Amino acid sequence: MDSCGLIVEYNPFHNGHQYHINQARNVSNSTCIIAIMSGNFLQRGEPAIIDKFHRTKAALHGGADIVIELPYTFAVQNSDRFANGAIQTLNKFGVSSVCFGSESGSMDPFFQAYKTIKNSSEAFDNLLKDNLSDGLSFPDAATAVYETLGLTEGNLDLSKPNNILGFSYVKAIQEYAPTIKPLTIQRKNNDFHDESINGSIASATSIRKQILQSDSMDDDVHNAIPIETLHQLQSYKDKTAIWHDFEQYFPLLRYRVLTMSIKELQNIQGVVEGLEYRIQQTASDALSFVDWMHKIKTKRYTWTRIQRIFIHILTNTKKDENYVDESPSYIRILGMNKQGQQYLNYHKKNFDVPIITSIANTTHSMLAIEERATKAYYSIIPAKLQRKMFKQELQGPIII
Amino acid sequence: MDSCGLIVEYNPFHNGHQYHINQARNVSNSTCIIAIMSGNFLQRGEPAIIDKFHRTKAALHGGADIVIELPYTFAVQNSDRFANGAIQTLNKFGVSSVCFGSESGSMDPFFQAYKTIKNSSEAFDNLLKDNLSDGLSFPDAATAVYETLGLTEGNLDLSKPNNILGFSYVKAIQEYAPTIKPLTIQRKNNDFHDESINGSIASATSIRKQILQSDSMDDDVHNAIPIETLHQLQSYKDKTAIWHDFEQYFPLLRYRVLTMSIKELQNIQGVVEGLEYRIQQTASDALSFVDWMHKIKTKRYTWTRIQRIFIHILTNTKKDENYVDESPSYIRILGMNKQGQQYLNYHKKNFDVPIITSIANTTHSMLAIEERATKAYYSIIPAKLQRKMFKQELQGPIII
Repeated sequence: MDSCGLIVEYNPFHNGHQYHINQARNVSNSTCIIAIMSGNFLQRGEPAIIDKFHRTKAALHGGADIVIELPYTFAVQNSDRFANGAIQTLNKFGVSSVCFGSESGSMDPFFQAYKTIKNSSEAFDNLLKDNLSDGLSFPDAATAVYETLGLTEGNLDLSKPNNILGFSYVKAIQEYAPTIKPLTIQRKNNDFHDESINGSIASATSIRKQILQSDSMDDDVHNAIPIETLHQLQSYKDKTAIWHDFEQYFPLLRYRVLTMSIKELQNIQGVVEGLEYRIQQTASDALSFVDWMHKIKTKRYTWTRIQRIFIHILTNTKKDENYVDESPSYIRILGMNKQGQQYLNYHKKNFDVPIITSIANTTHSMLAIEERATKAYYSIIPAKLQRKMFKQELQGPIII
Repeated sequence: MDSCGLIVEYNPFHNGHQYHINQARNVSNSTCIIAIMSGNFLQRGEPAIIDKFHRTKAALHGGADIVIELPYTFAVQNSDRFANGAIQTLNKFGVSSVCFGSESGSMDPFFQAYKTIKNSSEAFDNLLKDNLSDGLSFPDAATAVYETLGLTEGNLDLSKPNNILGFSYVKAIQEYAPTIKPLTIQRKNNDFHDESINGSIASATSIRKQILQSDSMDDDVHNAIPIETLHQLQSYKDKTAIWHDFEQYFPLLRYRVLTMSIKELQNIQGVVEGLEYRIQQTASDALSFVDWMHKIKTKRYTWTRIQRIFIHILTNTKKDENYVDESPSYIRILGMNKQGQQYLNYHKKNFDVPIITSIANTTHSMLAIEERATKAYYSIIPAKLQRKMFKQELQGPIII
């Protein structure tokens, strides 16, 4: 029973994701599509617009057979760590292939790039180091090295976000899971970061922006997402009265930073090189979350890196809670359909880590972070609803 | 130049406080009345209804010549520690006497009680210990001992809050400042904890309750407070749109407790005997601050003791920041009138601790707590206003 893994965030699930699932099923010739999805907080250091349970439902209706959760400790990390966590988890879950979107839709450029970098790893490391000490951010420093090595021309432009992520997957597969077959399909239209919806295949960024700015879902949004995503977005809003956005967490974050000691701030994951002072000093004058971000931002730190720090502050995740170099020690199933249940029954004796379907009655320390993250995520809705929404964490998986 | 010290909270300043100042001036025959006042958080573990700066203005208009601040580290503590901090600070500030309100208006019963307890200190300690191990709260345990020793009959009933506080002052004077002359005046009407306003002399509790419940100041309130208090209450509300109440901090507190580790909660001041588990376990189900309090409350812990813990959680005040056994290492002047300025000029060479008038450019660690406490206090108003209100901490004293 062959399965194909997809690494996703579905924030929210849209027509492009639907296309990705359909294509992945075709090119992998798999009977089971397994989506590993970030939970309530995402790789770019943002709260998801609706919670992981509602996003899981949309994904299952969109054709995923099983949705498993990428633990917080891998999800809210840079692309390499994110990819390592996702690939290792999919590997433990027994997938035969992984399929991701790229600009060209061909694997060869990825393999070539991997080979080039592998063969010049010493030069790569030295160039990267030089660029970093020149004050560049990590992605900018890496892109500059790719340029030097000729990896921003031709079929694989490693300055494009999707190619960077794809390349991280390929590296992780080579290093941790060489039996997984990497597959890629060409992306349809719309850039990763497009800010406005343009037709029926639109970026998640543009869809979120339109929804959050108008606090409603207009025809453009309807046109870009499957009807079930619309239902889940609406259902979440009906229950909690909100769609999540970083600004809603600003009062909590500001309060928190203003009452933390410098030492406590230093202990938060991702806080390095004196950033604790910069974050605290700018807190008093910040008038909004975005204003605060602008006050902290320098060439050296990417926007997403600072956002990830804020998520770690929000969830009180400390440096000594970083399990990112460990491989996943459990697999959490968020939801599945009949096909997924069959896959699970067929394979369940082969897994070397426990399969869990809720965080009730488990004691793994990674799950303590998960619980805290979920509570932090819901902290901006009324107490009564927080309790109700949190109960989803304690129930079994979503079955459709 | 004789001065008389008053230990106050002025939450808010009312006609009874006005009477207290006038009487203190008479019985002490002093030219200068010095009020030592809790800052933004109070002895009973509550946020003050308006900030310390607006309460200082009301106090100066009500006849206090100087208002100095009782540091957070003494203010949000049980009555003995509160009294020790206040008496030691007043002593360093050179007061000749201290005048407090009591049920009888006579000092003799206090001296007799002090003597009785002093002479039976071993018996007292043993009885107290027995009562505590029977699961009584500290005040209940102490009251039971007073009863056994015959100290709840006659002129000094040590089950009455005002007498308990007064007795703490007397003990602190005997132990730390025997040159200060203790004076007492009889309280007018209204019990400390009266919940409804009854005439022109009403308890601060009843005045606050009426203001917060109706979110306005009706005729009863007008009747119980001087016009300047009315102005300060109104002015504060005009600037910030709120009067402070614990419920407003509930979302922050709940978020904070739900994202703290048990170890972090254990490190918060006042958290003992496994209370950290009780506080965290009840957090998820609490629907309001009062609901949460009821869920935590047992016979062993008084309401105010639990409230003080919540204030320490809110301000992130840890056990190792407890300076309560140290004597005050600075005196902070919040405000004064001409008379107060003369007193200060006359005495300033005699003080053995620095006199400060703002927290700008000072590095004392007690002031770091003060800064954090003030930021936590304002954390429930919009960011822009927080910044504006906080600036009061950096300005010189209020002069009228």
